[in-house]
Amino acid sequence: MNELEIIEIIKNTLKFSNENIVKGIGDDCAVIKLDNNFYLVATTDMMIKKTHIPSILTPYEIGGRVLTANVSDIASMGAKPLAFLLSISLSKEEANEDFIKGLYSGLNDFSKLYNCPVVGGDTNKGDELILSGTAFGITKNPIYRKGEVGDDICVTNDLGRVYCALFLYYKLKYNKISYKEFEKFCQKYPKIIEKLRKPIARVKEGLLMNNFINGCCDISDGLGKEITYFKNFEIYSDKIFKLIPEDVIEFCEEFNLNPIEVVLNSGEEFELLFTTSKFNKVKDVVKNHSKIYKIGKIIEEGQFIDGEEFYGGGYIHKW
Amino acid sequence: MNELEIIEIIKNTLKFSNENIVKGIGDDCAVIKLDNNFYLVATTDMMIKKTHIPSILTPYEIGGRVLTANVSDIASMGAKPLAFLLSISLSKEEANEDFIKGLYSGLNDFSKLYNCPVVGGDTNKGDELILSGTAFGITKNPIYRKGEVGDDICVTNDLGRVYCALFLYYKLKYNKISYKEFEKFCQKYPKIIEKLRKPIARVKEGLLMNNFINGCCDISDGLGKEITYFKNFEIYSDKIFKLIPEDVIEFCEEFNLNPIEVVLNSGEEFELLFTTSKFNKVKDVVKNHSKIYKIGKIIEEGQFIDGEEFYGGGYIHKW
Repeated sequence: MNELEIIEIIKNTLKFSNENIVKGIGDDCAVIKLDNNFYLVATTDMMIKKTHIPSILTPYEIGGRVLTANVSDIASMGAKPLAFLLSISLSKEEANEDFIKGLYSGLNDFSKLYNCPVVGGDTNKGDELILSGTAFGITKNPIYRKGEVGDDICVTNDLGRVYCALFLYYKLKYNKISYKEFEKFCQKYPKIIEKLRKPIARVKEGLLMNNFINGCCDISDGLGKEITYFKNFEIYSDKIFKLIPEDVIEFCEEFNLNPIEVVLNSGEEFELLFTTSKFNKVKDVVKNHSKIYKIGKIIEEGQFIDGEEFYGGGYIHKW
Repeated sequence: MNELEIIEIIKNTLKFSNENIVKGIGDDCAVIKLDNNFYLVATTDMMIKKTHIPSILTPYEIGGRVLTANVSDIASMGAKPLAFLLSISLSKEEANEDFIKGLYSGLNDFSKLYNCPVVGGDTNKGDELILSGTAFGITKNPIYRKGEVGDDICVTNDLGRVYCALFLYYKLKYNKISYKEFEKFCQKYPKIIEKLRKPIARVKEGLLMNNFINGCCDISDGLGKEITYFKNFEIYSDKIFKLIPEDVIEFCEEFNLNPIEVVLNSGEEFELLFTTSKFNKVKDVVKNHSKIYKIGKIIEEGQFIDGEEFYGGGYIHKW
């Protein structure tokens, strides 16, 4: 069984809803109407040590990361973060003062950065480290994963570094390179490692562009998977190429990787993928925080890259 | 290290808050001000198969239980449930259609019962079954764990059955009784097993009594632990005795248990423990749903049972 089959069963079984629920399963956040003026948005994200947390991350970085992964979904709805809750399962290995102080210091610092206080949680004893976060936000105008025909499809900043960082990490993990070599590459490509260690959710950007975009999601599973949620689109590799920073190009040359493949499969970037008919306006309102790039357009029918049918990418859990 | 030491480190590390947060860590729910009219309350509860889920529960019952445990915290704040999110880690054992359909059917049915739709989640692959739920609700008047001097301390319905059910379950688990004997006891004490299998959160009661009580919590860790959150109190065993149903008395006689100890240590009951100066009014407003009983009073200073110092009870995780 894979993740998609399981989610299909879940969707078919969970039939109950009520008049408050504007959006249930199927977007970055659930959307609940509070009154005529505003909506609560909510999301949950679970990180399991073995599958989600590279062992090179420090406790501080793990804390920042779990908050960022959740808050990024709030940002992608164009909403203002309200608060965060963290349930945690600690194994014997992590049940010590150093680990806990580190983890919660990271959480605290990033909660300040996003103005999203950590207001509660549940602490448990388990066999492995598991962090399950829930973030809430509020907005007058929730932005969904969609676009209107003719809209530009755009991305904030850059993509690809996280893929490269994990590429190095797996080389280390499966003993293809020594720790010394790993460190040498980290020094050679500092920004690549930095984006894995300290990703940032685009909260300010989401709020600033809210009124000028038609749709948005965050890039957590890779552009190749996320773009498919917009249903009908054409994207172009020469435009995507502009998203790729110099160091990723150099890295791809060194390790013989295809940079477009790297960008399409680079997850946990937490950049925003959005659709707009007001590109220049968006560019202007976010200019103090992020650059934005067009990669294609929403079309009537079909999914294309460089005029050819698009086959996607991204990661799917399998049991 | 134990749970309390870990929570102390967490509280000391998580220093950031803002003007919206009325209550962070330290009550059944966090309380966030939305505007002058109402408050969002939110709680998270994690269930790990090995430590929290008796193996006699069906997938359907596990689904109902995780929702009930979370919604019960919303009820104890006197709030109206809004929605629920569930992150789940499935091992190979549970990644099959029967388990998932059963679990989410239980979740769906109980979400209808509480008018609390399941609006999202995150599905992951892990080594053991872990369910991490987050419920949120809304209220004009959040009720905290407190009381005013002279208030009656009261409990809804009855206590003790869950302790007895788990007592039987552990006898089975550690081979003190056969499965046949276990089944025989289940038939003899059907309501005892029923309260373990299908506990109910007191949502209607919390809403109805909201305006007439001073403080409230739900009984998830046992009366002996929960009562201590009210700081200064005197309780009486003859009054507590009235909370004990006939079948629990009979069970205690059969297994040579002290019924007062049983009541003090019976967790996951999800009854409400509350303080009020308007006992008769509360009794009247909830009369179609639950009975209520006085067990003592809030006093100026100290914690007493039958005039002697009170030493508590309840369960604390240790690593």
